[in-house]
Amino acid sequence: MTRPQAHAVARGGDPANAFGAQVPAEATLTPAEGGVCATRGIVAGGLAAGLKPSGKPDLALVAASQPVAAGAVQTTNAVAAAPVHLTRRHLAATGGRARAVLLNAGSANACTGPEGMAVAEASAGAVAAALGCATEEVLVTSTGVIGQPIPREPLLASIPDVAGQATGDAAGATRAADAIRTTDTTVKQAAVTAADPAGVATIGGLTKGSGMIDPAMATMLAVLTTDADLRHPALASVLSEVVGRTFGRISVDGCQSTNDAVVLLATGQAAHQPSLGTLVAGLEHVCGSLAEQIVRDGEGASRVLHVHVVGAETTSDAEVVARAVAGSDLVKTAVAGGDPNWGRVLAAVGAAGAGAAGLRAQAPAGTTPGDRAGDVPRTPRVVAERVDVRFGQVTVCRFGGAAAFDAGQAAAALRGPDVHLTIDLGLDHARATNLTCDLTHGYISINAEYTT
Amino acid sequence: MTRPQAHAVARGGDPANAFGAQVPAEATLTPAEGGVCATRGIVAGGLAAGLKPSGKPDLALVAASQPVAAGAVQTTNAVAAAPVHLTRRHLAATGGRARAVLLNAGSANACTGPEGMAVAEASAGAVAAALGCATEEVLVTSTGVIGQPIPREPLLASIPDVAGQATGDAAGATRAADAIRTTDTTVKQAAVTAADPAGVATIGGLTKGSGMIDPAMATMLAVLTTDADLRHPALASVLSEVVGRTFGRISVDGCQSTNDAVVLLATGQAAHQPSLGTLVAGLEHVCGSLAEQIVRDGEGASRVLHVHVVGAETTSDAEVVARAVAGSDLVKTAVAGGDPNWGRVLAAVGAAGAGAAGLRAQAPAGTTPGDRAGDVPRTPRVVAERVDVRFGQVTVCRFGGAAAFDAGQAAAALRGPDVHLTIDLGLDHARATNLTCDLTHGYISINAEYTT
Repeated sequence: MTRPQAHAVARGGDPANAFGAQVPAEATLTPAEGGVCATRGIVAGGLAAGLKPSGKPDLALVAASQPVAAGAVQTTNAVAAAPVHLTRRHLAATGGRARAVLLNAGSANACTGPEGMAVAEASAGAVAAALGCATEEVLVTSTGVIGQPIPREPLLASIPDVAGQATGDAAGATRAADAIRTTDTTVKQAAVTAADPAGVATIGGLTKGSGMIDPAMATMLAVLTTDADLRHPALASVLSEVVGRTFGRISVDGCQSTNDAVVLLATGQAAHQPSLGTLVAGLEHVCGSLAEQIVRDGEGASRVLHVHVVGAETTSDAEVVARAVAGSDLVKTAVAGGDPNWGRVLAAVGAAGAGAAGLRAQAPAGTTPGDRAGDVPRTPRVVAERVDVRFGQVTVCRFGGAAAFDAGQAAAALRGPDVHLTIDLGLDHARATNLTCDLTHGYISINAEYTT
Repeated sequence: MTRPQAHAVARGGDPANAFGAQVPAEATLTPAEGGVCATRGIVAGGLAAGLKPSGKPDLALVAASQPVAAGAVQTTNAVAAAPVHLTRRHLAATGGRARAVLLNAGSANACTGPEGMAVAEASAGAVAAALGCATEEVLVTSTGVIGQPIPREPLLASIPDVAGQATGDAAGATRAADAIRTTDTTVKQAAVTAADPAGVATIGGLTKGSGMIDPAMATMLAVLTTDADLRHPALASVLSEVVGRTFGRISVDGCQSTNDAVVLLATGQAAHQPSLGTLVAGLEHVCGSLAEQIVRDGEGASRVLHVHVVGAETTSDAEVVARAVAGSDLVKTAVAGGDPNWGRVLAAVGAAGAGAAGLRAQAPAGTTPGDRAGDVPRTPRVVAERVDVRFGQVTVCRFGGAAAFDAGQAAAALRGPDVHLTIDLGLDHARATNLTCDLTHGYISINAEYTT
């Protein structure tokens, strides 16, 4: 059993991550080393299989020592990649158990037809042969260029090697995290122990993602591991909820990928389990940290924008408004320019309040903005005259209008690597936080020059 | 009565504009001179009132010689500007009649509180005094920076001047169109006569808009005039439909403004009216031309991207998919880079097919992508294996997978000022066209440096 260290990252009542989830009263979160391999019994590895033209590492494996409880949250994109379909099928066949996750970069294996599915199936079979498990116990994820065939031979030839070199230490976890990078400039890992009087569990994770990042998932892959005994249906619902509050609340460019997947492997080897609330807090911390790392490494990003919506009538309203503001190219370019342009913020808030209704003719008897009770999903309630906007601690808009503020203080609040933008809807007490990055020339350069 | 010229722009069966609306069998559209003043009895003017720090023209007036039928389509933004509320109230009070439209640039008069509304009311009163009509017969529209107070004195002092210098010729129309520019680099006007055996009507228009342009309306103002006898409720429904198919199908950055308004003044002075279908075709042409001019002048745009979705099950499906592709920053940067990156197109198509459902956990019994019949609004039906993608005439994706194509021909299709991207969903015969522009360094420069 991994013992919590002295230097806790969060105790009861503290935020578990940048998205504001709270740590339960008696729980303590403590940093752990080793990413996915912080969980005992997990091995990981990565190597260069020749899938990337650059020759950089592009194939990774995360495996348990035996089949364990597993679940995944995947893209909802109607053009989903072969590995997305295969992973879904395998989890259905096993009733939610898996031995390993194979990950590759260099090719998304999306829009690749029957041959793409055949390669995905063959790769799962090769992992199963190397580990001595059933093919259905292998989950597959891919990231890279959409529409290019995934090279079958180099992929299959390297699978025994990556399985053979996988180790249960931090070096193995880092090799795996490194091998799934595409435009990522950083290796992204996190691990924590979550303890309370009942017991302690370890949660580790790795991820990749930099562009094509949308709240309803990203060009991101993530593997999470834990020694907690978390099984279906609790595993599926906990994973779905935590992903929704972390990876589901980030955006870089509002573009949704064909390949996104977050996979959780739960070994159930912890001697004494903490409460479910403590475990969830640990998972919130790891997923929140990984999600934040993605935004911080967003294509062309010079700073992270934390959009806090408070004072909403419902959490759903807060989420929709936060997403609209985080998705506004005009807000993101203003942040890039260090400009406290609250007018653009209010326009984005108001657009969220306009719902999906779109155009509406105003003529003799105009419909008033309140007449939208029938909308499904609910249009967030926004009353312009109640909205306050703050950059850092500087109130730049009060009751929907200009506030007197010190330009130097406002500029300072927009200067650092993290900008906190708070929108108080002034209606009730619900809140949500979204993370995004600024929109810079770097994004254009990366994406106008990234060739098919 | 204005006689149609010899050189028709469109005859029966031709497209009325870039968005694909068809001209009815017996109708002929012929270009006309004079923008909004092409309609007899309309006067227009513009001057520098001192609202823009640059000292450039910033105040415009379009007026009829007497009160005429009028309607407006306005932004649905919940943070709507004072002039949006005032125009709505005036149209309701008069039952859909107006004498004049006052337009200003330099200040959006949005998020300006009671003082902003008082200035908007006072400006309507000043126009009414100058023209000798009721205050409720004056409609007001504003564009510019959100949240800055609109300078009352220079605005009110200049209203008699702009009313006095308004003329019924092309010069007056051009002065008005010029005075409402913000980041626009071009003056945007259009006019046409629409004729059939029953009669002939003139339709003229002016607009502004360059950034903050979204399908559900834009930072755009437009005034349309016609001598047709078009009254409520037909006026409201025709205007709403045509705006939905033209201004409603363009985007620059997906950001919705607080101030958008399209106003139509119908004088009813035409001696012999054409059929309603012919009149609609004329209105489609003028609105389509103005909308296309906005996209072509999009902030930082180097080319216009025409997104044609064909083979959809319903027009609504085609619209949603076209909007998703036109709204994808990754597609727009690929077009800027001249890259036929069809994988990004398919990811955007698939994201539209994912609907607003967002995240969904895949675990033991995963929901299949078809299980969304209950979604409201309807998620467009997309079957990845049926989708073809063409740039110009070059098929780059066939049945959802890579097609063999000549790289030189594809590059050529992405080179000119207009790029035509066709997505054939392969399901049925519904279609829709959206216009957007590429996303370039120019957009970042304009919006990161445009200060509050």
